Parts: sequence; structure tokens; C-alpha cells
Amino acid sequence: HGEEIRMPLPVHPSVQSNGTVPKMFDSAFEAKKLFECMIHPINVSKFFSELWEKKPLLVKRHIPSYNDGWFSSGELDRILREEQVDFGRNIDVVTFIDDKRETHNPPGRAYAPLVWDFYQNGCSIRLLNPQTYSKNVWKFLSSLQEYFGCMAGANVYLTPPNSQGFAPHWDDIEAFILQLEGKKRWRLYSPRSDNETLPRFSSGNFTDKDIGEPTLDVILEAGDLLYFPRGTIHQGNTVNGEHSLHITVSSMQRNTWGDFLLKLLPQTIENAIEEDIEFRYSLPTDYLNYMGVAHSDLTDQRRTKFLRRLESLMTKLLSHAPVDETADQMGKQFCQDTLPPVLTDEEKIRTVHGHGERWCPQTNSVINAVELEPDTCVKLIRKSLIRLVMEGFQVFIYHNLENTRVWHEVEPRCFEIKPNLAPAVEYLLHSYPNYKQIDSFPLETIDEKMELASIFYDKGLLMTEDPLEIY
Amino acid sequence: HGEEIRMPLPVHPSVQSNGTVPKMFDSAFEAKKLFECMIHPINVSKFFSELWEKKPLLVKRHIPSYNDGWFSSGELDRILREEQVDFGRNIDVVTFIDDKRETHNPPGRAYAPLVWDFYQNGCSIRLLNPQTYSKNVWKFLSSLQEYFGCMAGANVYLTPPNSQGFAPHWDDIEAFILQLEGKKRWRLYSPRSDNETLPRFSSGNFTDKDIGEPTLDVILEAGDLLYFPRGTIHQGNTVNGEHSLHITVSSMQRNTWGDFLLKLLPQTIENAIEEDIEFRYSLPTDYLNYMGVAHSDLTDQRRTKFLRRLESLMTKLLSHAPVDETADQMGKQFCQDTLPPVLTDEEKIRTVHGHGERWCPQTNSVINAVELEPDTCVKLIRKSLIRLVMEGFQVFIYHNLENTRVWHEVEPRCFEIKPNLAPAVEYLLHSYPNYKQIDSFPLETIDEKMELASIFYDKGLLMTEDPLEIY
Amino acid sequence: HGEEIRMPLPVHPSVQSNGTVPKMFDSAFEAKKLFECMIHPINVSKFFSELWEKKPLLVKRHIPSYNDGWFSSGELDRILREEQVDFGRNIDVVTFIDDKRETHNPPGRAYAPLVWDFYQNGCSIRLLNPQTYSKNVWKFLSSLQEYFGCMAGANVYLTPPNSQGFAPHWDDIEAFILQLEGKKRWRLYSPRSDNETLPRFSSGNFTDKDIGEPTLDVILEAGDLLYFPRGTIHQGNTVNGEHSLHITVSSMQRNTWGDFLLKLLPQTIENAIEEDIEFRYSLPTDYLNYMGVAHSDLTDQRRTKFLRRLESLMTKLLSHAPVDETADQMGKQFCQDTLPPVLTDEEKIRTVHGHGERWCPQTNSVINAVELEPDTCVKLIRKSLIRLVMEGFQVFIYHNLENTRVWHEVEPRCFEIKPNLAPAVEYLLHSYPNYKQIDSFPLETIDEKMELASIFYDKGLLMTEDPLEIY
Amino acid sequence: HGEEIRMPLPVHPSVQSNGTVPKMFDSAFEAKKLFECMIHPINVSKFFSELWEKKPLLVKRHIPSYNDGWFSSGELDRILREEQVDFGRNIDVVTFIDDKRETHNPPGRAYAPLVWDFYQNGCSIRLLNPQTYSKNVWKFLSSLQEYFGCMAGANVYLTPPNSQGFAPHWDDIEAFILQLEGKKRWRLYSPRSDNETLPRFSSGNFTDKDIGEPTLDVILEAGDLLYFPRGTIHQGNTVNGEHSLHITVSSMQRNTWGDFLLKLLPQTIENAIEEDIEFRYSLPTDYLNYMGVAHSDLTDQRRTKFLRRLESLMTKLLSHAPVDETADQMGKQFCQDTLPPVLTDEEKIRTVHGHGERWCPQTNSVINAVELEPDTCVKLIRKSLIRLVMEGFQVFIYHNLENTRVWHEVEPRCFEIKPNLAPAVEYLLHSYPNYKQIDSFPLETIDEKMELASIFYDKGLLMTEDPLEIY
Repeated sequence: HGEEIRMPLPVHPSVQSNGTVPKMFDSAFEAKKLFECMIHPINVSKFFSELWEKKPLLVKRHIPSYNDGWFSSGELDRILREEQVDFGRNIDVVTFIDDKRETHNPPGRAYAPLVWDFYQNGCSIRLLNPQTYSKNVWKFLSSLQEYFGCMAGANVYLTPPNSQGFAPHWDDIEAFILQLEGKKRWRLYSPRSDNETLPRFSSGNFTDKDIGEPTLDVILEAGDLLYFPRGTIHQGNTVNGEHSLHITVSSMQRNTWGDFLLKLLPQTIENAIEEDIEFRYSLPTDYLNYMGVAHSDLTDQRRTKFLRRLESLMTKLLSHAPVDETADQMGKQFCQDTLPPVLTDEEKIRTVHGHGERWCPQTNSVINAVELEPDTCVKLIRKSLIRLVMEGFQVFIYHNLENTRVWHEVEPRCFEIKPNLAPAVEYLLHSYPNYKQIDSFPLETIDEKMELASIFYDKGLLMTEDPLEIY
Repeated sequence: HGEEIRMPLPVHPSVQSNGTVPKMFDSAFEAKKLFECMIHPINVSKFFSELWEKKPLLVKRHIPSYNDGWFSSGELDRILREEQVDFGRNIDVVTFIDDKRETHNPPGRAYAPLVWDFYQNGCSIRLLNPQTYSKNVWKFLSSLQEYFGCMAGANVYLTPPNSQGFAPHWDDIEAFILQLEGKKRWRLYSPRSDNETLPRFSSGNFTDKDIGEPTLDVILEAGDLLYFPRGTIHQGNTVNGEHSLHITVSSMQRNTWGDFLLKLLPQTIENAIEEDIEFRYSLPTDYLNYMGVAHSDLTDQRRTKFLRRLESLMTKLLSHAPVDETADQMGKQFCQDTLPPVLTDEEKIRTVHGHGERWCPQTNSVINAVELEPDTCVKLIRKSLIRLVMEGFQVFIYHNLENTRVWHEVEPRCFEIKPNLAPAVEYLLHSYPNYKQIDSFPLETIDEKMELASIFYDKGLLMTEDPLEIY
Repeated sequence: HGEEIRMPLPVHPSVQSNGTVPKMFDSAFEAKKLFECMIHPINVSKFFSELWEKKPLLVKRHIPSYNDGWFSSGELDRILREEQVDFGRNIDVVTFIDDKRETHNPPGRAYAPLVWDFYQNGCSIRLLNPQTYSKNVWKFLSSLQEYFGCMAGANVYLTPPNSQGFAPHWDDIEAFILQLEGKKRWRLYSPRSDNETLPRFSSGNFTDKDIGEPTLDVILEAGDLLYFPRGTIHQGNTVNGEHSLHITVSSMQRNTWGDFLLKLLPQTIENAIEEDIEFRYSLPTDYLNYMGVAHSDLTDQRRTKFLRRLESLMTKLLSHAPVDETADQMGKQFCQDTLPPVLTDEEKIRTVHGHGERWCPQTNSVINAVELEPDTCVKLIRKSLIRLVMEGFQVFIYHNLENTRVWHEVEPRCFEIKPNLAPAVEYLLHSYPNYKQIDSFPLETIDEKMELASIFYDKGLLMTEDPLEIY
Repeated sequence: HGEEIRMPLPVHPSVQSNGTVPKMFDSAFEAKKLFECMIHPINVSKFFSELWEKKPLLVKRHIPSYNDGWFSSGELDRILREEQVDFGRNIDVVTFIDDKRETHNPPGRAYAPLVWDFYQNGCSIRLLNPQTYSKNVWKFLSSLQEYFGCMAGANVYLTPPNSQGFAPHWDDIEAFILQLEGKKRWRLYSPRSDNETLPRFSSGNFTDKDIGEPTLDVILEAGDLLYFPRGTIHQGNTVNGEHSLHITVSSMQRNTWGDFLLKLLPQTIENAIEEDIEFRYSLPTDYLNYMGVAHSDLTDQRRTKFLRRLESLMTKLLSHAPVDETADQMGKQFCQDTLPPVLTDEEKIRTVHGHGERWCPQTNSVINAVELEPDTCVKLIRKSLIRLVMEGFQVFIYHNLENTRVWHEVEPRCFEIKPNLAPAVEYLLHSYPNYKQIDSFPLETIDEKMELASIFYDKGLLMTEDPLEIY
């Protein structure tokens, strides 16, 4: 049964088995399929209601090739040989021996022979952000980030036989461990207290006596999956003379309701002060005499009155909360944090990325002119590609299209559009994944419709249903 | 009737008419008396319930000397001659002629002849923060700040006959104008809208056509008082060939319930995240698709659910709000912002400020040793002198005793005490204004009691009931 | 005759016509050959004695393909399609019409169709630093920088027919214009004054009336070369319905004797103060009374004496000047500023870049171990690859090997070696381009020799005469 | 004989014994008299030729009151009682016991009883910058700084009987120790090497074994003087049950020919590059191959040629050196670093500081108007009060008149004047100390003369020969 769900992985989700692009491709649908495949045979609804942020999940598949396509030690070798991988920044060489965690990074570039030499000497290798170098990891993560609604990251871990690279610890992300080669023994431990459950920050290194008995002790083999929530203390080591290679996919780092409130509340209280005079009245002239830790044991009606008034004001806050604006700020952050989409050739030929004017060396002139027409059918190239953000009276479009594969390497990309064109942007967002004729845009004039379509097409955000005709 | 209320002003509130210090002096009581005198014959309760932050108050007294003791043009002349007063930083030379507001400050020091030359040529003079140079203004403001529970400031305005120095505008403080010399016509205008009522920030300059008809048009004479809430547009000009000198006492600048919430909420949400797992759950993976301005018109159950959950979390916030800790942060700010107390000679002789070891030039040695004893009776030298602040497991005492008369000229002053000594600090705060024997401090051992008393006495914060005996 | 000198260009200089790497390859020799080819048929000595920094040189070759291999419009098209080229950062779209210079860069990425659309509308295209995207430009510049002893840069200019992109101006670099496609008319103007000759900074834009008559007015055709010194005012425009593509190779930006002195003198005076008490004596107590602009017309013996003493001290400076240390600081800067070397496959197989341990997917283990032996023959991979820098008692090796093709994208790369190993580094520098046996290094023990060789080999700086044997 | 030279000290140098101000007062002359008195009976020329920066000088006077007027322990007691003196910033409490140097400063303000308590327990007291609190010290230092041509500083040291406060060390200033009360044994040690002679920076603390035998071992008594050059290691301790109070006057901190060159050379090389094309020629393309530490042992004609060219350029530097401009930069620094002058009442009545318009409380108006006339005679109030500085085409007057007694508490004070008025400023500088009629200023028109005089008079820089008449 594993085979049918493995299929979407090695080939790009948008490509049918016959190699053609479906007319109506939906990046959200493909993202969901990818995630289903990852946790197969667990049902997604069940996963989110019973396991997500609650307890670990182990899927033993007995199909060593199930996770193929993600990454391999051979690809690591190629990367070390072809790319500028720096110790410390991109790769770590580590050991955990006799309860002692050590990092052995020399300065400078990690040439393959050096790295393999460390490996031969029992060091574990951690490749950070393999998506920077591996097109497949990039492709999968750029799909998963659409599914999770926040950045998805990854690290790759290669461990030589009979060794361990890291001390027991917990991380601040939801972790999906996909075993790619060999095998590894994992021991998981429950959070030690309520406030270490779903923590905001990663822990330091523990020793065995800090953490008690494991609640799960399993051997992960190629093709298997292990999920556990942030806060789960874990350690892994290779056994029985076999090496191990796995990739850990991560998400949900500081992406909680609390984080939303951290962004929402400062603006909420600013709004409340501006909109409601109750927030602009002076404090009682004597409150410093009965409020404060030194006065907290006083029985004083003035304390009660002060607290009651505060309660009344805090209750009013919700009505001043700019919830949608804050969601847009989160969406703007999403655009900055995430990987750009991976476009297929079939997609490129329908966009500015692969179509349109080009130089003809034979004639020393520009050929291949194309033009949008009112009846051209268009859609956004991905569902989560852009964010419409209003700041004051201005309307901005943020997007992740020009991000690089290195996190925050470039400035956030955005451009302003005239406010009257905004309805067409909402229309494009809500129509997705369907193609729409430009002249169906909900704008007043055909000029406005063509203007918005041209801006978005030129920015590479829009895909035409059919390649534009060359004239 | 004005005379009996004028009396507290020219002499220091703590000195009785017979010149002796009362055994039980209460700085809060004296502050209240000073304020009562300022708004006399208006009743304080009535003032706060009917006028404060609501409407202007004019008190015509027909006693030109009523406000004497605050400041005079003669004192300004002395200050210009003796102190380093700089144009721009400490003094402004301005005109408002034909709807045009101009500042004429040259660079550098404001020597008296230059300033008077400007005055002769029709310029108004504004002396900023006269408390820096005038001991009386310092004395009065340091008392009023205890009354208002926040910083009290002042500016002095000298206007030549038949002129105006400033354009119509509103300020961001509660203003008490005390007419000191001559007379001035004032025109006041109601806030133009709800959100210009009790504003957080001062306005720019208006022209007559911006502001409509005055709601109050009066002539203030020496001895009179004019109060108006922040946000009240006002302009003043001299008439009938007379000059004018007034002092504006200000307070309540950004000291509102909203400001309290601005300090309270960030820590509240941090606490909530730490204490309640509900705040640590991930956001829904798909929320960016239905929350945001582009989706705000959607009818989608998921929006309703999202908003309901947010409401539930915001309702929970109050139970995580560190109200007393925030009051202490405000109190710490009070200690940094306010003037140091003015001590009388009678007070100094009971403190480290005027008693204890001194050098004897005759013998070339130190004489006059004094020592606290368990039965020494002590109190804080002012009610609002110190703030007990807990930060983590540490206890700090903030105070304004070593502030200078220039705002924020020195770093905030604080020192740490051992947590076990904290109850004695609360005891001193709650006992005020009564003297207490050191051995009555609620601490375990006499050593601890003497330790706390010594620290506070050496820091100059504690006053003994009688001068310590010299041995 | 042009043909034989064109040959080195399209193929890498280090590769013989039969495709093998010569046993003794000398990067300095190859760099010289490349430069000779560039200015052919002008003799190099003659060029430097008669033209360099003095006057322009025009070489008409009548061989359109002479400059082939550098760049082409077709390669620009490929780059726009495959690389993230940003308007403003990497590419500029400009016009110069009716004496008005305009930049038309939109924000964001420069997709090919947009760029070609601008071109079609008469805009000139400037691609900044083509070496970032073009391996050939990278290869040529990395060789020329060895020749010039300082950074060599480049820009590519594509101009549509009958247009001009830039206003007349001068640049702050020595310019070599290689015409690649089409033709362009160039007008050159002599510097207008002595202090505009060989200027340190580029000029602003001129109009025709600022600059007088051209001293050279020529049409450059594909295959031609135009050289002119910094400070030469120039303008170029396309004529007769033909487009133009050229590359401008630049060097010697702020690389003058003055720049050397700017680096040398601060340390010189520090040394002088430390080493010679004459520099530590106090100034005359009264010198402020006779030195200074207000006293410069005085006839005063004290002025003469003061100036004479200053002259005596300045004359002494040379003996305290750390000339070699400053050259090393310049060399360190060279390492930071320059492009990394381009390695051939034949070179890679002799270095850590292409030889040594690798992963074997079949056996899931590391294979291909190699090891340096005392009789292994080695050399530096390029003559100008490293700089030995002494700072205090520490010895550092700076190098450009791990630079990227983007200027200053990475931190300067360096590592420390033990001072006792330094003689072997000098030996490697002076032996270049000859291979030397490791055991011939001028160090005391064989362990030290192997240690230095290993460090340099592992860092990728050392090449073995033959590929190391796998065992 | 001591008596006649002691006289200038307790009274202000400018006041004759009959209490009148001499018509022609010369601050430079008075400064010289003060310094003569300080080192009396040593001749000044002899001091500078034989001792200054060379060896220590001890003057035993047997007149305990000789140094009276500078400072006393009684004044210290007053200061602690009246001024805000902070531990660490303004005062230090230290011990040196059993070769261990300790600082005992608590945080916060140094109340007198606390300080005396430390003293009673054997701690030494160092009052930093007594000029901030003591008018006499201010007066003397403001005169000495004119004499030294650079900032003069001071510290006061009070040591209890039979103790030592500081470890042996050297300072970076010329030190004049004036014994004020009690006695102190001083041990001085020669610099240990040439490069510790006249050092730029103070040393750390030494132990006895670091420093060898003292070259001077004396007991200083009240009235005595001890001078020693910077770099002289010294230690002092009280003996025979007597306390000690002395003031150390310091000067010449980083005020050497080397410091002048440090300011002069950067601008010199900038000028040379701008003015002489020789400095703008490129470096040889191959110099990095033969210059540098790794090549320093090479015998290579190119090295010789490179060094010779460098020598030729460095020799040319002098002709590009802006010596007077640099002296003005030093003079500008002097204005920023130094104390403002102390004005007598007799001087004030001749300046804007004590004359001119004032407020009359009786009439509520400005009286006492005065005006400069063309025949008014004026002079600068001090010789070293102002500095004329040209920056580009602008002319600025820097002065120290508005400095406070705290070093660098205020921004440097300066104002711009029109270039055409500059000759009058030079005239005032060169005429000093003589009074000159305004209409004798070397300017074209009487308006210009009056303009310059007014600006300087209003700024408080100019003194009239007689008080201006009131009209």
C-alpha cells in the first residue's frame, strides 16, 4: 500500500503521471497531498485532533525506499564538492561521547575530504538548511510551508555507525524525522512539567539523570517516520554497525496564538487610546500609594476600584483589536520567511519566467514579443505567493517570489498598487486555483484591469492558462 | 479670605509659624495643602469630580500678591546674570505677529542684556524649567509631584506690553496658569472633536480660522488662576500697555490608564504564554487563507471560530496581568522623572545630610561621630521618596533623592537590598508619617533591623526623630 | 596576425592546445599573456612607459571575433532568464536624451521580457559585475587582477541603435573598452586641468558646453579596443542603425602611491612616537600664540624654530615607516577584494577541490582516502593566492580562495599558523611556479614540514604535481 | 623671601594690593607670575631648560602656609556637605595595604559622614577635579592652562596617618605636587628604560620588586613642592602619625610633537594627493610580489626603487603640511578642553557679564541701557579665550567662555563670522593686552567695525576700558 502514496514525492506534485501539467493546478491541494504522503497511513484529521502538539507518532513502513527523493549521502557528497559550504554556518561536525557534547568545526570552507575524514573518525555531520543546495528539499519545503501556513525548515543528519552526535535536548519546533538511509535508535522522554510542554525556546543539553526513563525507545529504519511535538526530549544513536541518514522537517517555530497576540496587542492598545477617551483619562493621583508589590497585601477599597477599572478597560480591548491587520502582518512575515516557489518548465512557459521577449543572436535584435489581452485567462502561480497589506491609506503587495533559498538573504519584497486596483487582487486570491479572464476583474475600466494584470504578470506573479501567442 | 490660604506658600509648608518643625511632618498632607491653596476657594473633591480633565476653571482673586513667592521678573534677571542659561535649551525668545510665530534664539548663552534687548523689541521670553534655578519653584513642584503622583513641570512666560508670543495651540498636559505680575487676556476654545479631547500629544500652531470662537475670553490679573485640561486650545496676549508674567504648572503628561496598559500588556502576554498552554498552541495551519484584510468580507465559519478563540484568550489575559509589578515600574519611573526633595535645616540636622562626622581644621581630625541605636526613632524623609521594586528574585530600592534639578541629568538611582529586609521597607512605607523605633521593624534579628536602618540612614533616606547624640 | 594572439582567450590560459595541463603552470605568466593579447599589437613595455595613465589608446583590429569569448548579448539573455538579477543592484536601465540622463529601474527582479521591452524602447542596459554570472568574465578578471596587482572589475553595456545611455563624465578607474558586438562612436576629451588629471573620484554628469571639443572621435567596431586613463571625459553613442555591446574592464581604483601613504603614515607616526623620544617631548607652552592662521603673517623667530623642528621630525619619519607591513596590509586587502581563482578539472584532481575521500552510495561508506607523503611535490595553486601577514607576534595567512564572485559578500578569510612554520610559506611563495618536495621545506623537523603542507592542502591552497595515490 | 612670592596666590592675580584693577591687565603675564610663584625660588628658564621633562624637582620651603589658598580639608568637608559628589565619578576611597590596591567606593552619593567614616578606618580619599567645587582651584587652573598652552587638571589627596592609598605607578602627565597639610614621604624611581620615558599612557600598579631602589626619598611638608616628569614611578605614604593633604596639578597630557603630527599628517597626505600628481600615480602592478614581510630579505632592485620613490614622496610631504591649520585645530581643542575664565567684579562691570540692561521691579520695565560707540576702547577679556579657525571658506570663532567647570560637559562653543571681519579678530589678538578704539579696527567701514565689536561684546568676549555709560 505504501507505493501509491510514495508516488507524489519523487516527481513534482504538479506533474501528472503522463508528464503534462493539469490545466487547473492547486498548490494548496498538492501541499496537502504531500503532507498526507509524509504521515501515511495516518489520517490527517486524526493526526491533527489526536497527535499534533500532543504526542509522538511512529510509522514503521518496511519500505526502505519510501522517503527516497528527499536526500541522500551521495547528494551530500556532491554538495560538499560543488557548493561553498562553510563550517559553522552551513555544516556542523559534532560528537557526544561520555555525556560530553563537542563541536569540532574548523574555520573556513568544508571541503569534502575534510568532512569525510571527520566522519571516518566518528563525528556526526549536520547539514543545515539543505534546501539551499538540494532542489528536491527546496521543492518539498516550499510545498509544506503552504500547508503549515508558516516557514518549514530542515536539517540533515549523517551519523557514523555506533555513535551519537547530540546530547538529549528538546527543540522549539514540531519535528518530522524522515529516515533516509541506515537505521537509528531513538529514545523520547515526556516533558517534565506543564510549563516545559510546547515551549517557546529550545533547551540546553541534558544528561541522562535529568530526564528519567524514555517513554518511547524505537529503531527507525529507512522509509520510516517519527513525529514529535516541540518540548519532547529526544536522543538518537546508531546501532549494530550501521550508519544513519535522516532529514528533520520542522515547522511552527514561535507561530502560536501567543505570538499572534504579541503582534496584535501593542496596536490594539494604541487603537483603544485613540478611539476611546476612557483610555485617555489620567490615573488616580494617589494610585502609587496603594498599588505595587509593597502594597499588595493591603485591604483597601481603592485597590479594588483600581483593579475593577483596569478589568473594564481590558475587556474593551477586543473591540479595538486589528485582527485582520495583524493576520496581514503575519502574512507579510510569511512572505519574508519562506522559500520561493519551484516552477516547472510547463509553468515557466506560461509566465514571464520563461516566456516573452528574448535576444536573437542571429539578427542581433529582440524577438518573441507577447502581450496580455482582455480575454487572456490568468491565475496566481501559487496560492500562498502574495499578501495584500494595507498600511494607512496605501496598499502593498508582499510576495516571496524573489526570495533566495537562504533565509532572509534578501530584503522583504513588496510593491505598492493604487488602492482602486485592490479588488482585483482579492478576486485573484479568492478565485485561486481557477483561471479568470482579465476582463472579468471587478474593476471599473478595462484600462484598470489591464494595468493590474500587467503589473502582476511583469512581476512574475501571474500565470496564463495557455502560453501567450508570439506576434 | 485669600490671606489665610496664601500663607503656606511663601514659607516652606513644613515650617510652623513659630519656625519649629512639627514632630510629625507629613509630606503628603503638605502637598495636599499646597494644592488646595493653589485652587482656593474651590473645593478639591469638587474640582476633581466636576472640572479635572473636563473644563477650564478661572479664579479671580483680587489679591495681587496671592501667587507671590513662586517667581518674579526680578528673579529672572538674577538668574540670567548668575546662571548659565542657554538660548534654545533653557530659554526661548519668540514673537507671534500677524499670524506668524517666530523664534529668535541666537546660539549660545543668554546674557541678561541680550535678553532684555529682545524684550524691549517686543519679544516674549519663555524660561523653561525655572525649578533648575529657582529654589521656590523647585520646592513647590517637588511637593506637587507628590500630590499628582507624577512629574510636575513648569515654564515661566514674560510678555512685553501689547504683544503675543505664541500661536493658538493645545498642550499635552493639565495646565495651571498662575498670574504673577501684570495682566494677560486669555482666549480658550473647546476641543474640536472627541478624539482631540485629552490628546496624547501637543498640537501644532493654529490660525484663527482653524479654531472658531472662544468659549472663554478673560483677563487674568496678578493673583489669579486659570486651569484648563490638555487639549484645550488657548492663546494669550497682553493688553492696555501692561506687561505680563505667569508661571504654568503642568502635570499628567502621558500618565493615563492607556499608558498604564502600554506598560502592563507586554508583560501580561509574556506571562500568559508562560503560564497557560492555551497561549502556546499553534495557530491553525490555514488561518492566513481566511484572516486578513483581503478576506474580511468573507462569511466563513473559520473566521468566526478564529475570532472566538482570540476573544477567549484575551479574556484570560487579566488573570495574568502583573498589575502591582507594573505600578512599581511606574513608581520607578516616578523616581527617575521627579525633583529631589528640598530639605530644611531642621530636617538636615536629623539626617546624614546635615549631621554626623565632620572635619575639624583645628585638630586636623574627624569629629562629631554619631550612631543609630535600637531605640532610635526613624521615618522616611518623604512619603514618595522611594519605590520598592522586585525584579526576579532581587529587591531594589529606587529613589529620587540624588536626582538633580535638571530632568534626567543623572542615571536612575537604585540599590539592592537582601530580600529578607524587604518587610522593614514596607513597614517604613506604611508607618509614614509616624516615627518608629528601629527595634520595632518586622525583621527576625536586631542585626537585620540595624542593618536596614543603617543602609537607609547612610543613603540619606531616613530621618531620626531627634538629632543623634554626638559621642 | 590577430589570430594567434586571440587564441589564449576563448580557452583557459592554462590549457595547452592539446588539452593537457603543463607540468609547470605559472599564473603570473598566463596573466601577462592575457594582457598582451588584450592590447595586442602594442608592446607591453611601451604601453606602460608611453600610454598608461597618460593618454588614450585605440586599437582597430578589423577582426570582429577578436574579443569573442568575453561576453555576448545571448549570454545576457541567458543570465536574465536563469539568475536573480535585480534592477538597481545588478542591472541599470538608462537613457541620455536631450542632455538629460535618466534611470528607469523599476524595483525588484529584472525578468528578461521586461529588460528587452526597455531595450526596444530605446533604453541602454548596463549589467554590473558580469563576472557574478559569466564564468568567462570571472576567469579573465581573476587572471587580470594578478597582472594589475589589484582588483579588476567589469561592466557590460548594451545600447540599442541610434541612442546614448550616459552623459559625458569621467571615471576613477583605468578603462579598457572591448567592443564585442555592433559598433559605437566614442568621443574623448582631455582633463580640463591638472587637478582633474588622474582623479580619485568619478565626476558627475557634464553637458557639452562643460567639456569643449573632443580630442578623439572614433567608431569602435567588434574586435577593437579603446583604453583611456581615469579622468578622461568620454561619451559614446550608437550610430547608423546598429546596436552596440561592449565590456569595460577596470582597475587601479584608489591604488596609488597616495593610497599607500594613507595606509602607511598613521602607523609610521605611531611607531615614531614609540621608538623616538623626540616625538614624545611636549609642544612649546606658547606655540598657540604664534602658530595658526591668525598668526601666519607674523615675522617671529619662534615660528621659524617651530617649523624647523617639525621639518626635522618629518624627515625622521621614513626611518620609522613600516613599508613591508603596509604592503602586507594592501595584500590583505587584495585578498579580500579579488575574485577566487577558476580551477580546471586537471587542477582540481590535484587538490582537495576534486580529489580525496568521497561517499560511496553502494557500500554506504567513505572511500578514496589519500595522504601527503614527504616526497610529494607541491606548489601554491596561484601566485597571488595568499598573503603572509604578521600582526604583533602572530602570523596569519589571508587568501581569496573562498571569496564568492560577489564583491565582499563574505568576510575576509584568514587563518593563523605557528610562527615557526612561516619560513615554509615564504619558500612556497618564492618557489612558485615550481613544485617542491615537502621534505625540502626549510623547517626543522619532518613533522613541521608535514604539518604545514597538510594545513595548506586541506585549505585547498596547495596543488600536488601528480594526483595523490588512492590507497 | 617666600612671603613676597606667596602673595599673588590667595588674592586674584589681577587685583593689586589696593584692590583696583590695573588698566592694562595681561592674563598671560599673570599666568607666568603664578607659575613662577609655584616653582619659586627656581628660575623659570632654568626650570624649562634643565628640569622640565627631564628630572624631579623638590622645593623645601619651611613656610607651611606657602601653598595656602589652594585647598584645605575643611573645604573638602564643605564640598561633601553642599555638593552632589558621587563615589566613583567624583571621589574615590582607596587603600594600599600589603601590596594590595583596593577601591572601596559604594554606589551613589558621597555624604560627608560616610566619607569620614572611611577615612577614620584608614582609607585615603581622592577628590577628582576639585576645580568643579572650589573657586580657588578653578581660578588657579584657568590661569595655568594659559601658561601651559593646554589643559591643566588637578586631583586632591587626603591620606590618614600611617597609611598609603596607592600602589607605585607612573602617570601620563607632568605632575606638580603642592603639599597643603601635614606631611608625606615620597619615593621616586627613574624610568626603567628609554621607551618608558615620557610615556603616552599611565602604567598599571607595580610591586616593590618591579621598580628597584628609589632615586629620591623625601618627606614633603606643608608649603613644599615636588615636581616630576610623566613616566616617573612614584609612591607616597604618611608617617609619624600625621595626616597629609596635597593637590596634584597636572598638564601636558598627550600634548607632544607626536600628537601634533598625528593631527597634521592625515590632512597633509590628503593635500599632497590633491595638489601633486606624483601622489596620484598607480602603484607598480607587481609590487605585491616583492614588497611585504615575506619578501623583506630579498635583494631585488625593484625593492630599492620602490623604497626610493616612497622616500621621495615622503620628503615632499612637508610642503603640503597645513601647519597653521593644525595649530588652529589644537587651539580649537584647547577651547573645548579648558576651564572658563574667572571674572572679577571689576571685570564684569566692563562686560556683558555684569553690565547693561536689567529688570527694574519697581517700574516693571527694563532699565540701564548701554551702547558701544566708535571711540569705545576694548580688548579681549583673556589672551587665550578665543581661536580663529578657518574651515573651507568659512571663518569660525571658538572660545571657552561658556564651558562649565566639568570637563566636556557642554558641546564645543563656536560661532561663524563673515570672512571680511576676520582682520579685526587678528587685530584684537595681536593688540592684547592693550585696549583699542573700535574705530581703529582694520576694517573698511565703520559699520563693519561696530558689527564685529557688537558681536564680540554681546558674546561676552570683549571688555571695555571703562564701564559703558548708562543712558
